Amino acid sequence: MKHALPVTRAQDFAAWYQAVIAEADLAEESGVRGCMVIRPWGYGIWERIQRLLDDRIKATGHENCYFPLFIPLSYFAKEAEHVEGFAKEMAVVTHHRLIGDGKGGLVPDPEAKLEEPLVVRPTSETVIGAAFARWVQSWRDLPVLINQWANVVRWEMRTRMFLRTSEFLWQEGHTAHASEAEAREETLRILELYRSFAEECLALPVVAGEKPENERFPGAVATYSIEAMMQDGKALQAGTSHFLGTNFAAAQNIRFQNAAGELELANTTSWGVSTRMIGGVIMVHGDDDGLRAPPRIAPWQVVIVPMLRDAPEDEAVIGYCRELQRALAARTAFGEPVRALLDLKPAKAAAKRWGWVKKGAPLIVEVGPRDMAGGNVSVVRRDRLYREDGKLDAQVLARDAFVEGAPALLVAIQAALFADAKARLDTAIVPVSDWAAIEAMFADGRENPGWAEISWSRPAGTTLDAVVERLKALKLTIRNAPMTPGEEVTGACVFTGEPAVERVLIARAY
Amino acid sequence: MKHALPVTRAQDFAAWYQAVIAEADLAEESGVRGCMVIRPWGYGIWERIQRLLDDRIKATGHENCYFPLFIPLSYFAKEAEHVEGFAKEMAVVTHHRLIGDGKGGLVPDPEAKLEEPLVVRPTSETVIGAAFARWVQSWRDLPVLINQWANVVRWEMRTRMFLRTSEFLWQEGHTAHASEAEAREETLRILELYRSFAEECLALPVVAGEKPENERFPGAVATYSIEAMMQDGKALQAGTSHFLGTNFAAAQNIRFQNAAGELELANTTSWGVSTRMIGGVIMVHGDDDGLRAPPRIAPWQVVIVPMLRDAPEDEAVIGYCRELQRALAARTAFGEPVRALLDLKPAKAAAKRWGWVKKGAPLIVEVGPRDMAGGNVSVVRRDRLYREDGKLDAQVLARDAFVEGAPALLVAIQAALFADAKARLDTAIVPVSDWAAIEAMFADGRENPGWAEISWSRPAGTTLDAVVERLKALKLTIRNAPMTPGEEVTGACVFTGEPAVERVLIARAY
Repeated sequence: MKHALPVTRAQDFAAWYQAVIAEADLAEESGVRGCMVIRPWGYGIWERIQRLLDDRIKATGHENCYFPLFIPLSYFAKEAEHVEGFAKEMAVVTHHRLIGDGKGGLVPDPEAKLEEPLVVRPTSETVIGAAFARWVQSWRDLPVLINQWANVVRWEMRTRMFLRTSEFLWQEGHTAHASEAEAREETLRILELYRSFAEECLALPVVAGEKPENERFPGAVATYSIEAMMQDGKALQAGTSHFLGTNFAAAQNIRFQNAAGELELANTTSWGVSTRMIGGVIMVHGDDDGLRAPPRIAPWQVVIVPMLRDAPEDEAVIGYCRELQRALAARTAFGEPVRALLDLKPAKAAAKRWGWVKKGAPLIVEVGPRDMAGGNVSVVRRDRLYREDGKLDAQVLARDAFVEGAPALLVAIQAALFADAKARLDTAIVPVSDWAAIEAMFADGRENPGWAEISWSRPAGTTLDAVVERLKALKLTIRNAPMTPGEEVTGACVFTGEPAVERVLIARAY
Repeated sequence: MKHALPVTRAQDFAAWYQAVIAEADLAEESGVRGCMVIRPWGYGIWERIQRLLDDRIKATGHENCYFPLFIPLSYFAKEAEHVEGFAKEMAVVTHHRLIGDGKGGLVPDPEAKLEEPLVVRPTSETVIGAAFARWVQSWRDLPVLINQWANVVRWEMRTRMFLRTSEFLWQEGHTAHASEAEAREETLRILELYRSFAEECLALPVVAGEKPENERFPGAVATYSIEAMMQDGKALQAGTSHFLGTNFAAAQNIRFQNAAGELELANTTSWGVSTRMIGGVIMVHGDDDGLRAPPRIAPWQVVIVPMLRDAPEDEAVIGYCRELQRALAARTAFGEPVRALLDLKPAKAAAKRWGWVKKGAPLIVEVGPRDMAGGNVSVVRRDRLYREDGKLDAQVLARDAFVEGAPALLVAIQAALFADAKARLDTAIVPVSDWAAIEAMFADGRENPGWAEISWSRPAGTTLDAVVERLKALKLTIRNAPMTPGEEVTGACVFTGEPAVERVLIARAY
């Protein structure tokens, strides 16, 4: 069977991923090392993610604000003292002016060297912590619940679009609380918010759980993540929520007078998701014809392609399509007006149809003179593109019935994408009880091994280091310990033989 | 009469401006040179501006995307060759790693020096132009209509919050067209979009017009602006729209094959508004009690403050307030649900009321046990805070009538703020016909001189330079030539004595 992409998932998953990004006009190389251009269809998906996630972040009492892009070097020196594993790959601004080099080029002006270099934020704990120290005096000032949507930069040697770029877009939440219990509750509230957002809006089934000690954010007391499974069986960390205890508050002097008049350190949290999520959406919902965008985040949910012939009846077909677009936009799906586009670009209808297939518009509607005459439309569901016989499954439907049913159809597509991915995830998580089974599962050349679920004794320190090394030899990492409240874990640890205390997931990962 | 701010506009306008920003929790110094922290109330206003402006930008066919923060130095070298007046005050990234200095501090790692320095974008014409050159091959690819919401950095020696900061937030639109006429039409369409947005959403009356040659964006063929008048009579450029002709296309090789098969240069435009607009809102609508936020951009339009006494009936008062909040949120103003907040922070009701007065919430509603018993609410309209006798004008209204009338009241407040500002603008634009009158109008020590409207011959080159110098001695600049289609200008040029061809506005400016 012929597909719209030049390479299939089975042939070369990595090449297929790049092909989806290129053919669906999601993003492209920018000519700037490690940075990408996010094109309108990709950015439209990000805008939908922002809108839906922002609503949830605000509904849980957080307010947005904006902190500087630049952070003075001295802020990091303080953090580097406190935090082991502090990453140092950052973009450093050292000059504030350009000057001609006398040969027609430009160079940084040596006269305009900064006294203190500025770092382009890799994350904003330090600069936001400094603000918290100013804002928080009394228990009455707590909790402080803020969030920011921003670009951040972490210098990366090997980059991959959406998954790992030097500059990326994200939201970073930062909160300060009067008690440890309240801060821990916040950390888990956000973890659950991320889980439900990923599952309900992105149709991405995820496992929420705590990261092992070696995977914690530097300085965190506990780090939680949501992990999604890509179609090649690898894991993608799609969001993290950190309980920072009083570590950052101590370094940054975030203190408050409690009700008894005593000075206490605040407990803080931080949490974020990024444009990386779009990489997850591609690798979970894409197929050999391109992306399949979940309706809730599709910039256009229904795209109408008129079949024009440079003939006099074209006008009438366009009029019929405009009326259809208006009727769809007047309907509501997922609590919002249906997003319907009439594609009038100068190109052949078939080329436009396949363009929208590759972009993954959930419903593609073609209308020709015959459809119009019959009061019909011809509808392709992007999540079920082909009939049993391998032909494109375009259904001719009565216009009014289609308009009436479109919201339910979009809901059904969203649910079908989730159900498919959920079935894949559930099947590919394999309980494993000894090391030999892990080795067999992840033996070289085995395609899509999935994730191993094991019991362990939660080793720490050098014992954990040894476990991490053993796993690393198989290119494996511990993803997280799934949240399974009330569940009792029995048996022995796969690594130490000691009594197991929790279950963890082991996988290859992006 | 006592006011909520420590300084009045009449006493010291510049100090008053800073006081509003501090007391209304709009923004604060960040500890990072030239960069500010935009606090939730200030950022909430920006989010409203973004939402309303973005809707209009999309409704006119533009799509959002995202381009890199960093631009290679060589891109600017090319521009510097082409563009006279090219500004060179930019933040330059020269290193990509930090390293310990052996004394507990950090320094840029000399081993991690970039081969080619990267500039933090001051605006994105160069990097977006490079993408246009990739995207545009044929007339079928045109027009390209894109926009991005981003942070940009221009190194500033003297900064003032919102008005001039090293980092600021903005939107920048960039378009490419097949013909000059179409690109000029786009430039003016956006100018009109900015004008109507400023007037309808921000309640800022503005004058839209063309900038004189000396005030053009470097490389532009024509630059247009909207200019707003602050309460001290100074002008604030609140948005610009540039017709770039084929200048940038030539430098960046944006060419297309026209319908006849010939290669042509595209015509491009660019246009932007920034967080500077918030400075304009403050200086146009603020009074001696703080900000007065226009309802369309107020993060909360109605704030409910319960009067609690640590008494058993508090519960009932809070319940009554919650019901009020729900009823308000179910109403629609300006086509959106009314944004109503119930303020339950632990503080005295009077302190909270004055906090919201300073922030400028359009309607502040206080509810005590007596109001509740009578089925009433006590309402303060922020735009008319005091009665004739100087007392706070709190009106007791029946709850249901207030809820019913709230949308109309918000519309009335928006209109009243605009009408006040419009009357000030109209009164303070003074037609002037000779240089002596200009000197008299802007004589030292005269408060709020307003703007002079003069006729001129549109001098160019060295003649214009001489005019600019004469004006500069009085700290004046030419703001723009207002768009007055069809109007005939007669008389002599104030500067050259030659026949006048258009009218221009002259003012002191931020």
